[in-house]
Amino acid sequence: MAAEHSRPTLKDVAHRAGVSIATASRAMANNPAVAPTTRARIQDLAAEMGYLPNAQARALQSSRSNTIGIVVPSLINPYFATMVTAVQDAAKGAGLATIITNTDEQPETMAASLTFLASHGVDGIICVPDEACAEQLNQLHHQGMPLTLIDRELTGSPIPTVTSDPQPGMDAAISMLVEHHALPIGYLSGPMSTSTGRARLDAFQRACHNHDLEPQLVFRGGFEQEKGFEGATHLLDHGARALVAGDTMMTIGVLQACHRAGLSVGEDISVIGFDNQPIFALQPRPLTVIDQQVESMARQAFTVLHGLLVGTQPTQSPRPHLVTPTILIEGDSLMKGPNHD
Amino acid sequence: MAAEHSRPTLKDVAHRAGVSIATASRAMANNPAVAPTTRARIQDLAAEMGYLPNAQARALQSSRSNTIGIVVPSLINPYFATMVTAVQDAAKGAGLATIITNTDEQPETMAASLTFLASHGVDGIICVPDEACAEQLNQLHHQGMPLTLIDRELTGSPIPTVTSDPQPGMDAAISMLVEHHALPIGYLSGPMSTSTGRARLDAFQRACHNHDLEPQLVFRGGFEQEKGFEGATHLLDHGARALVAGDTMMTIGVLQACHRAGLSVGEDISVIGFDNQPIFALQPRPLTVIDQQVESMARQAFTVLHGLLVGTQPTQSPRPHLVTPTILIEGDSLMKGPNHD
Repeated sequence: MAAEHSRPTLKDVAHRAGVSIATASRAMANNPAVAPTTRARIQDLAAEMGYLPNAQARALQSSRSNTIGIVVPSLINPYFATMVTAVQDAAKGAGLATIITNTDEQPETMAASLTFLASHGVDGIICVPDEACAEQLNQLHHQGMPLTLIDRELTGSPIPTVTSDPQPGMDAAISMLVEHHALPIGYLSGPMSTSTGRARLDAFQRACHNHDLEPQLVFRGGFEQEKGFEGATHLLDHGARALVAGDTMMTIGVLQACHRAGLSVGEDISVIGFDNQPIFALQPRPLTVIDQQVESMARQAFTVLHGLLVGTQPTQSPRPHLVTPTILIEGDSLMKGPNHD
Repeated sequence: MAAEHSRPTLKDVAHRAGVSIATASRAMANNPAVAPTTRARIQDLAAEMGYLPNAQARALQSSRSNTIGIVVPSLINPYFATMVTAVQDAAKGAGLATIITNTDEQPETMAASLTFLASHGVDGIICVPDEACAEQLNQLHHQGMPLTLIDRELTGSPIPTVTSDPQPGMDAAISMLVEHHALPIGYLSGPMSTSTGRARLDAFQRACHNHDLEPQLVFRGGFEQEKGFEGATHLLDHGARALVAGDTMMTIGVLQACHRAGLSVGEDISVIGFDNQPIFALQPRPLTVIDQQVESMARQAFTVLHGLLVGTQPTQSPRPHLVTPTILIEGDSLMKGPNHD
């Protein structure tokens, strides 16, 4: 464990890779004299060990760049575009610039992004973590890189984390659907490989249980518009009279499916979206949504990171885990139930 | 002029600033021993001269990072989020990672972003330029940084550029509005400080002229949802029976204004949007839009940058300027005119 706290040298990398220091050095500099597969193997190993590419990079890192990095899984998803913009606003207020990387939900892209950011002089990183990169993130944290996780969490990680609690918004959503007799409910779940996908499905099932409902319909999807479209179509085919989406992109897919099926939201079908996107209010009947208050989460994450940067938050103390409650924002997208006729 | 081609040293910066090299060095390292105003003055001067912060940064830059930077004015605007994602996809196909900066339409933020990217080891930069940063961009180009401009252009700049031509899409839009007798037309223009704002207004006026129309209504706005809302409200008050928006964000603002005014798009008012955003198809009547084919533009910009990186495109040759035509994508958002009743 002690080794985690001191940075590995090029010699350590060469030793582990079973190559000479010269070869390791060439591989790290992407010198074509080293075969591509060998280069890739040495670079992967170096990344895994937390090696920073070269002395220059370390020297750079020792002086402040007044720049932070933010790593998100998508920018097409307006939830993350809003998060990034809110972090950047908060950072700007503290005199810090922001650079952004989009991992496109690919763990390899996240690994490369983190390595680039850490070795090219950012002062700290806010990251929506991929569970496949937990080890690399924990290692960066142990090496003293100021880090804050946002939106998704890593079980057992010591890294400070800011997430939202889906339960309050989901309870209010199910309560309102029950009141409108909009049953059965179809839920469009995110992927089980993300903490948010698991926590929201759990919150949905708990909310149904709290309302003495039988198990409702669940479609296990992904955080993509196509999955929302596919899931909504599937759930409608199975008799759902209400659809609850598990993120922004699936909400867009649900609207697309209703539109394609000629169903008027709020008249022929009840829909509750996820995240309070301005575009959701531009439907003929504004969408009722579960709001994560992403801008507030983003500001909190920056505040935590800034505490690490200026030293008011000790890096190795028990991690703060800040949780923002979700809230239900009422639109007009629920059918009037028998009691309301 | 010759001086532009060799990089200035810290000594040059100190000399121009009238301070000692030690003071200049401390200022560049953000050392609080130098008064904040002096620090800022020296850093601004260094940025203006194209000085790269330190020897380490130069050393880093001499080896390839296999990472490119992309600089855009917004990520909340899905047009730029799509552009960034398409550049990243293309770069990934060539084995390159991408880091992103969002300038929030602030020239100071763009200046700082460019300085960070250039001094922290990206191999090349794709940039939606702000005219206030023309000198810095041209200087980076002269210093040999592979650069490609996208979306907006800089008059007289030698930097390779990829833009779209608004005329074909605008001609088709006006032609269709005339055919539907949807007059007068209100146009929501972007800011005159951007080449796109100017070129689209020019294209609108030329298209009206080509159709022997009297001058139509124009609202001079900005690339923001609020400006679209304000402009649409203003143009409706002045009797516009059709609204043509000058970008994605103003299109959203137009939809919001129609929604707020209780006007059903395609029944009570004709609307032609700008950019082919998936959300625009999710209106009760899908929006007719002028499409810039942003993904194709993004791929072209990457191809040009990649040519500079691998040396197939000589850096100092006459700049390529690639222009993608806009096209009209027909939805169902125009009122039926008297001929169609």
